Amino acid sequence: MRIVITGGAGFIGKKLARALLARGTLMDRHGTIETIRTITLFDVVEADGLPDDPRLETVAGDITDPAAVKALIGARTDGVFHLAAIVSANAEQDFDLGYRVNLDGTRHVLEACRALSEPIRLVFASSVAVYGGDMPAVLDDGTILTPQTSYGAQKAASELLLNDYGRKGFVDGRALRLPTIVVRPGKPNKAASTFASSIIREPLAGQEAICPVTREAEMYILSPRRVLQALTHAFELPAAAFGMTRMLTLPGITVSIGQMVDALAEIAGERVARRIQWQPDPMIQRIVAGWPARFDARRGRSMGFEPDADVAEIIQAHTEDELGGNIA
Amino acid sequence: MRIVITGGAGFIGKKLARALLARGTLMDRHGTIETIRTITLFDVVEADGLPDDPRLETVAGDITDPAAVKALIGARTDGVFHLAAIVSANAEQDFDLGYRVNLDGTRHVLEACRALSEPIRLVFASSVAVYGGDMPAVLDDGTILTPQTSYGAQKAASELLLNDYGRKGFVDGRALRLPTIVVRPGKPNKAASTFASSIIREPLAGQEAICPVTREAEMYILSPRRVLQALTHAFELPAAAFGMTRMLTLPGITVSIGQMVDALAEIAGERVARRIQWQPDPMIQRIVAGWPARFDARRGRSMGFEPDADVAEIIQAHTEDELGGNIA
Repeated sequence: MRIVITGGAGFIGKKLARALLARGTLMDRHGTIETIRTITLFDVVEADGLPDDPRLETVAGDITDPAAVKALIGARTDGVFHLAAIVSANAEQDFDLGYRVNLDGTRHVLEACRALSEPIRLVFASSVAVYGGDMPAVLDDGTILTPQTSYGAQKAASELLLNDYGRKGFVDGRALRLPTIVVRPGKPNKAASTFASSIIREPLAGQEAICPVTREAEMYILSPRRVLQALTHAFELPAAAFGMTRMLTLPGITVSIGQMVDALAEIAGERVARRIQWQPDPMIQRIVAGWPARFDARRGRSMGFEPDADVAEIIQAHTEDELGGNIA
Repeated sequence: MRIVITGGAGFIGKKLARALLARGTLMDRHGTIETIRTITLFDVVEADGLPDDPRLETVAGDITDPAAVKALIGARTDGVFHLAAIVSANAEQDFDLGYRVNLDGTRHVLEACRALSEPIRLVFASSVAVYGGDMPAVLDDGTILTPQTSYGAQKAASELLLNDYGRKGFVDGRALRLPTIVVRPGKPNKAASTFASSIIREPLAGQEAICPVTREAEMYILSPRRVLQALTHAFELPAAAFGMTRMLTLPGITVSIGQMVDALAEIAGERVARRIQWQPDPMIQRIVAGWPARFDARRGRSMGFEPDADVAEIIQAHTEDELGGNIA
């Protein structure tokens, strides 16, 4: 089996590659367990820091170039995880780049799949950013999409295309709307949501972190571990499991920032939790309040997608996966 | 004021041009009544059969060519009615053409508007084809879009783009989802909905028509007259009237085919209504049953959009506008 991961130099892309290497197999669309022979990580830069494994291949290329994407996804490709994207804040800042990467890039992937003789499986990382503005208190997979960012609009439009290409039999696509990923490894980025990882990641590493929202702010979150499980599970699910639409909001957990910090204090001690500086920023507070926080993810759960049990589990997983079990 | 109409050789485009010529003015975005100085009808072919009026200009060009659209919508353009589209059946048949015209074409229009120094008004003809599949019994503007055709997916994606370009201040866009237009003048086309016009138009003109659905089938319809009113009304509405989203399903009326034929018999006589041959076609019956028939169009009504009073009014308008008041 030959798997392509776009956005392969990103942290989810690399983690997914490691997870697939560890698994060694994926179920194909005929229900057969197939050995993974090649994983191609495609990104603007070559993915680094990966294990020396003959099954891994890195390709530097531009998702906005249809020829590059056609060269990437060819007759020998059995499945694609399409994770490549310009993040929310960046897409808001650079309108053209956002559309080129997040919408046209997805279309190039769909077109490359369409050119193949069989409809291969395509798992697309969408986002709960397809929701915004006036929303019901609790959303579900029947809630109208009302993106309030270019990123959200691009993801929503891409979902429509994926669904239509699927309906036409050009690709066997599945779009997963990812909650806010907590704890992201690495450094803070420019996303408004970056603090949600920082307030756990930095204190655990012995560093201070600023929390720009109050304890009451709520978020809908999912750990990297669960995202990886969801991506492979979505790949392996039979098409019929999705029913009428290939779009799905992943089951996550709704937590207040207070709950997150309390869990941190319980696991790592008050000493660690005190490394958080509370500096409410009205703008970020407002942005976060505009995000959907509560989902009825019954459909996703019935399809076998599982959220984290609680924040403690998320912190534990981060400590194991990123810190070798050590808290500073 | 200089107005551009894309799809200007289509029947709505030409009717809109005539209506604008007759009005002579449009309210601009500052609330000022402005004289219409030029109406440019853009289409793949030059619009014909139009009055000899110095304000009218026809341009043959390709909406899929960004340069042609940029040349069309320039610094002197004050407003655009974007009606150009590949119809549903055609978009289903020619996948690439549908995306090029219905999605890329709309994007070219949005980009041309964005290049201007001010956000001009843009009225976009979307469609209730953005709905399909499993739907609530009564839809409203809060219902999730679930297109089941490429045409519907292209319209839904275009709406997302229009809304996003609007949010960014690049254009002052308004997307109207048109119900099935009854009575379309001219000849039957390949659309599955074509019979809805035929069963009124042909008998009134002394010809037989085939009705492929039973009396119980329901449709959500709007007359050409009301569509024209809606297009100009949407152009003139202040942006604030739209609230959070620029998408709107136009108020139409829900009628059964039986009601349509009964109204025809009442106005034109049993003799005329007997020109309808009832030949139920299971495939068309199924397609029509899959269309949304009932809308709670409260939002549109509150914004001043008006449906036809009843089928009688629609037949009357058709007789006046297309038959000079004469029934064969």
